[in-house]
Amino acid sequence: MQSSSYVQGQWVTGEGGKTVLNAVTGEPVARVSSDGIDFAAMLDYARTQVGPKLRALTFHQRALQLKALAQTLMADKERFYKLSTATGATRTDSWVDIDGGIGTLFTYASKGRRELPNATFALDGNPEPMSRHGSFIGQHIHTSLEGVAVHINAFNFPVWGMLEKFAANYLAGLPAIVKPATQTAYVTEDVVRAIVDSGLIEEGALQLISGGVGDLLDHVTCQDVVTFTGSAATGRKLKQHPAIVENATRFSMEADSLNFLALGPDAGPDTPEFKLAVKEVMREMTVKAGQKCTAIRRVLVARDHQQAFIDALSEKLDKVVVGNPEAEGVTMGALASRDQVEEVRARIADLAEGAKIVYGDPARCEVVDADADKGAFVAPVVLSADAPFEHTAIHTIEAFGPVATVMPYETTEEAVALARLGGGSLVGSIVTYDAGFAQAMTLGCAPFHGRLLVLDRDCAKESTGHGSPMPMLVHGGPGRAGGGEELGGMRAVFHYMQRSALQGSPDMLADVIDHWLPGGKRVQTDRHPFQKHFDELEIGDAILTDAREVTLEDIEHFANFTGDTFYAHMDEDAAKANPFFDGRVAHGYYIVSLAAGLFVEPNPGPVLANYGVDNLRFMTPAYPGDALRVALTCKHKTKRENTEYGEVRWDATVTNQNDEVVAQYDVLTMVATTDWTPEAEETAAA
Amino acid sequence: MQSSSYVQGQWVTGEGGKTVLNAVTGEPVARVSSDGIDFAAMLDYARTQVGPKLRALTFHQRALQLKALAQTLMADKERFYKLSTATGATRTDSWVDIDGGIGTLFTYASKGRRELPNATFALDGNPEPMSRHGSFIGQHIHTSLEGVAVHINAFNFPVWGMLEKFAANYLAGLPAIVKPATQTAYVTEDVVRAIVDSGLIEEGALQLISGGVGDLLDHVTCQDVVTFTGSAATGRKLKQHPAIVENATRFSMEADSLNFLALGPDAGPDTPEFKLAVKEVMREMTVKAGQKCTAIRRVLVARDHQQAFIDALSEKLDKVVVGNPEAEGVTMGALASRDQVEEVRARIADLAEGAKIVYGDPARCEVVDADADKGAFVAPVVLSADAPFEHTAIHTIEAFGPVATVMPYETTEEAVALARLGGGSLVGSIVTYDAGFAQAMTLGCAPFHGRLLVLDRDCAKESTGHGSPMPMLVHGGPGRAGGGEELGGMRAVFHYMQRSALQGSPDMLADVIDHWLPGGKRVQTDRHPFQKHFDELEIGDAILTDAREVTLEDIEHFANFTGDTFYAHMDEDAAKANPFFDGRVAHGYYIVSLAAGLFVEPNPGPVLANYGVDNLRFMTPAYPGDALRVALTCKHKTKRENTEYGEVRWDATVTNQNDEVVAQYDVLTMVATTDWTPEAEETAAA
Repeated sequence: MQSSSYVQGQWVTGEGGKTVLNAVTGEPVARVSSDGIDFAAMLDYARTQVGPKLRALTFHQRALQLKALAQTLMADKERFYKLSTATGATRTDSWVDIDGGIGTLFTYASKGRRELPNATFALDGNPEPMSRHGSFIGQHIHTSLEGVAVHINAFNFPVWGMLEKFAANYLAGLPAIVKPATQTAYVTEDVVRAIVDSGLIEEGALQLISGGVGDLLDHVTCQDVVTFTGSAATGRKLKQHPAIVENATRFSMEADSLNFLALGPDAGPDTPEFKLAVKEVMREMTVKAGQKCTAIRRVLVARDHQQAFIDALSEKLDKVVVGNPEAEGVTMGALASRDQVEEVRARIADLAEGAKIVYGDPARCEVVDADADKGAFVAPVVLSADAPFEHTAIHTIEAFGPVATVMPYETTEEAVALARLGGGSLVGSIVTYDAGFAQAMTLGCAPFHGRLLVLDRDCAKESTGHGSPMPMLVHGGPGRAGGGEELGGMRAVFHYMQRSALQGSPDMLADVIDHWLPGGKRVQTDRHPFQKHFDELEIGDAILTDAREVTLEDIEHFANFTGDTFYAHMDEDAAKANPFFDGRVAHGYYIVSLAAGLFVEPNPGPVLANYGVDNLRFMTPAYPGDALRVALTCKHKTKRENTEYGEVRWDATVTNQNDEVVAQYDVLTMVATTDWTPEAEETAAA
Repeated sequence: MQSSSYVQGQWVTGEGGKTVLNAVTGEPVARVSSDGIDFAAMLDYARTQVGPKLRALTFHQRALQLKALAQTLMADKERFYKLSTATGATRTDSWVDIDGGIGTLFTYASKGRRELPNATFALDGNPEPMSRHGSFIGQHIHTSLEGVAVHINAFNFPVWGMLEKFAANYLAGLPAIVKPATQTAYVTEDVVRAIVDSGLIEEGALQLISGGVGDLLDHVTCQDVVTFTGSAATGRKLKQHPAIVENATRFSMEADSLNFLALGPDAGPDTPEFKLAVKEVMREMTVKAGQKCTAIRRVLVARDHQQAFIDALSEKLDKVVVGNPEAEGVTMGALASRDQVEEVRARIADLAEGAKIVYGDPARCEVVDADADKGAFVAPVVLSADAPFEHTAIHTIEAFGPVATVMPYETTEEAVALARLGGGSLVGSIVTYDAGFAQAMTLGCAPFHGRLLVLDRDCAKESTGHGSPMPMLVHGGPGRAGGGEELGGMRAVFHYMQRSALQGSPDMLADVIDHWLPGGKRVQTDRHPFQKHFDELEIGDAILTDAREVTLEDIEHFANFTGDTFYAHMDEDAAKANPFFDGRVAHGYYIVSLAAGLFVEPNPGPVLANYGVDNLRFMTPAYPGDALRVALTCKHKTKRENTEYGEVRWDATVTNQNDEVVAQYDVLTMVATTDWTPEAEETAAA
């Protein structure tokens, strides 16, 4: 069948092209060509026809679309599983790819609504005071880049590889052009068809190139982002593409790396950690037939345990059944192609120059329900390197298949040094129940790794494992791993946005970013701001209360009532001996309680609840005789989609009779819109 | 005089080299050569001899060293001012360079202690829940890269250019190698001498190359960071250096760009903003004789005001006095060299193809107390472009001198479009008193700009101006500006650190990062944790209190005592109508007050004060009859340098009789060490 591309809202099929074979049977499964596509027009379409629509939506609106999309794809997933068997993938392999990919959409949909405002841009960090009198202030913001996310993906995860990047770029407000690897493009194409057919995301926000990218990269600008997952050699070439260099186009590269697993010296053969390590290595070697950029390639074991580890691993691998992924009992499928088989064999030969093959035979593979001469099968191979500091090949050459090298270390320092010889990796695992070893390895390896898993008996049951990038954690690594960073929750969204520092007066900036800033005006209106609905409230609406005096009697009363009889409130001499106080002071909790008493409007109204307080700081002690007052100012509003109330953040500043700030904090409230009624609320919740 | 380099702890002087001339007199002022330096050895020395010492210090210790250094340089600054006149700089110019550079050290010293822990690594973001039962969790951390920061700097800011980068890399724990531009390297060298002589920072943490970098870049790894400030052409070449590409070495580039100032249509000749804009453009043209990467090159003015603006600007420029910066009354000095004069004249000629010179003559310059034929003088030149969309040169060609082009716009959309034609800039200024124009311009230009200043009558007096990068705000911009990012407070520090995701059990990760994590163990010891000194407290030390019942009587009592008689506490029917409550509820502030009553140890002890609360969330309402208890757990400790007490952060979790979480927050306390006495305290404060 001829694969198609999805270009400017239409499916187009190129002429001729490369024939892709079924990894299991060797039969043709697809022909892939992007001939005839106008790549510059694809970019232009995304920039001019799609981007503006997408950027008109808020983060929450985009997140809800991603959630709906994830639900639809989940319902369709058996179709993707079925198709994926032709890539050599078992059900387990496809779970990582398909459920993993859809799960990433769910995570971004949910975190996007929790961690981003319901707006089209986001603040970055706190306001920066920049002037003595407060008339000039700074604030960083993130705005959407106005270009296209171009994703050039690897063959091993045709679904996850697309969705993990798309989730972030879509949430950020950028349309994407995805170019999957030719070998498995037909699976990606099928998922894109499901996405397009769903109509759940903005039309054109996802375009697909089945085949080569032609002159696409010649047309990128400083507003585009190019991501690449695949071989380091190709990635480096793309990174130096003239248009990418000329325009300082953001380029993120994620290359497979020689990830390690280190078994602690405490973890002898009888420990749970020993067994966990054996299982983890076995799993990493066989899931996706070892075709994962995160797979464990180097196993670091205390020299005393090296042979026992190899024996235990061999025993586990004996139970692996290679063959047709659709056949009963098969636990490891095929590589993506017979070219890959040749590649893996060649790299094993390179590795064997400094290490000994102690399990498996690269040239032979027994298979179930398949023809070993037609399918792309390789059996698991374990190597053992006795002098791991002498042979650099084991740290630099990767066989992208079911292959790992076991090597010994004498000391923790040696284990750290070996791990770092990978020259930068995506992930490392430290399997130990010894916190000292865990800390030394973790902090010693962190500068060279994007992710580190400390695996032990306490977390094993719930651990997501060495090889799985998780949407909330960064994925990427320095050096050999490409220097890129993906995922990591909202961090990835900001890779598709521009951070800008804004400077100006607090009031002008407040108007620009819809957010009250320190030093800004406080507007007292006739109505108490708690009587204004969400949609009536304006940034800067404020109440400045009368003062209430703090008395010794009240401090004692509060102490006795709450039980908080801390000496600084109760004992004048002891309080004076405290470096922060000149005598008995009011409780911090009394100050904020008294403040609420001053600013609250008691009658039923739009303010429904105080759901929290942020960044409360007690800055000047309050002593008996001090007269405290509060300024409460509407700081920021964000309404959730599909509800009739929103979150309003208030600045609360408590001052004393000398205008010293006694306490400062944010009060968080839920406030109803004018449309809200208890009945509407119940309907929405249903 | 022959300039020297500072290499591996020694001053070395190269043979021969390039002769640098005094920009004012044309006399030789320095000869610069790096001949004979072993660049690979410089890197190796920094990595092996200096890095480990530096990383053994905490952020706070490094910050205090920077503070002491800044104080020393400030005392020495007249010497730098004196030397800088040979570069053509006036006192004002040098203030930006010298006081600006030293000020950046002060800012990083102070922010570093406020915003980073007193530790060798920093957490990034919140813990990430990763499992249903809580036995597996994620946390990101930043660790110091274990390489070298290589800074290749521009000629225009020999002091600030070094210090603004060094402040961040030093705080991050990296040694630096600085290569100033040859033209002004003798000024940098003098400051490095002062730094080395001070002995205030770790020996070897700053090495200097006066002259070319030779084969230095051939030896960089994934642990190094290369920064470049200067021309886009050179920067692009360096970015593609084989070792940088091969090792995915971090590379940050900051190139001069065609920054804009846009005057709002509201700002006619009689408005304060009109005058502010004229003054800002005049200043940007003449400070450093316009040799600033942030200088205003393009002035966008509503067509109606174009002539008036040119007239007013011309009048201002008439008052500029060019000449010997040491002479009385001179307000603008020389360019860095006569080569630069030729370069600027050639670029003005390019610009003049699409714009008309309306002020000044590139070929003639009247000078005071100098020989115009020997010094590197150029008079201010203003161009006017009537068809700014037709002539791309005015948006792409930069004359790096006292040159700006005024151009008209008809609508706000046009103004945004013109600003963006710069293809990515460091900074833009919007001068207006119209919030609508300010917002449209700011959000429209943000994706193309690293910094945006909204200048108006309210902030003008305290504004730091268009051209000044500020240490707390990011400096850098997309596209033409190089795509790099510097400064921005702690953001810059993290550019020299690796972010890694850690995964594991809460207890194991707590041991690794010295930070209690949700789901971690709570250890109740015999002593109340408030009776333990800072140095005795351990992460996980906890108190689990008895329960206290919430009663209607107490709710009413609290309401009447504090004055917080919000209906949800006082009126059963009204409370029931609220979507969040099933009836009258306890005040949030009562819950935290009651909690303090439960967990506080009243007697004098090491806990000195509760100075704040973070991230308080009320998660389940507390009703009359509910029995609340608190678990208070030591979460993190950080001791300030030179004090005998430290900050202890506690997790407070209030639960009800059904183990539902009612409230969760961090309690922040100051806790004395065992060495603390009131007397010691007074000595430290003195």
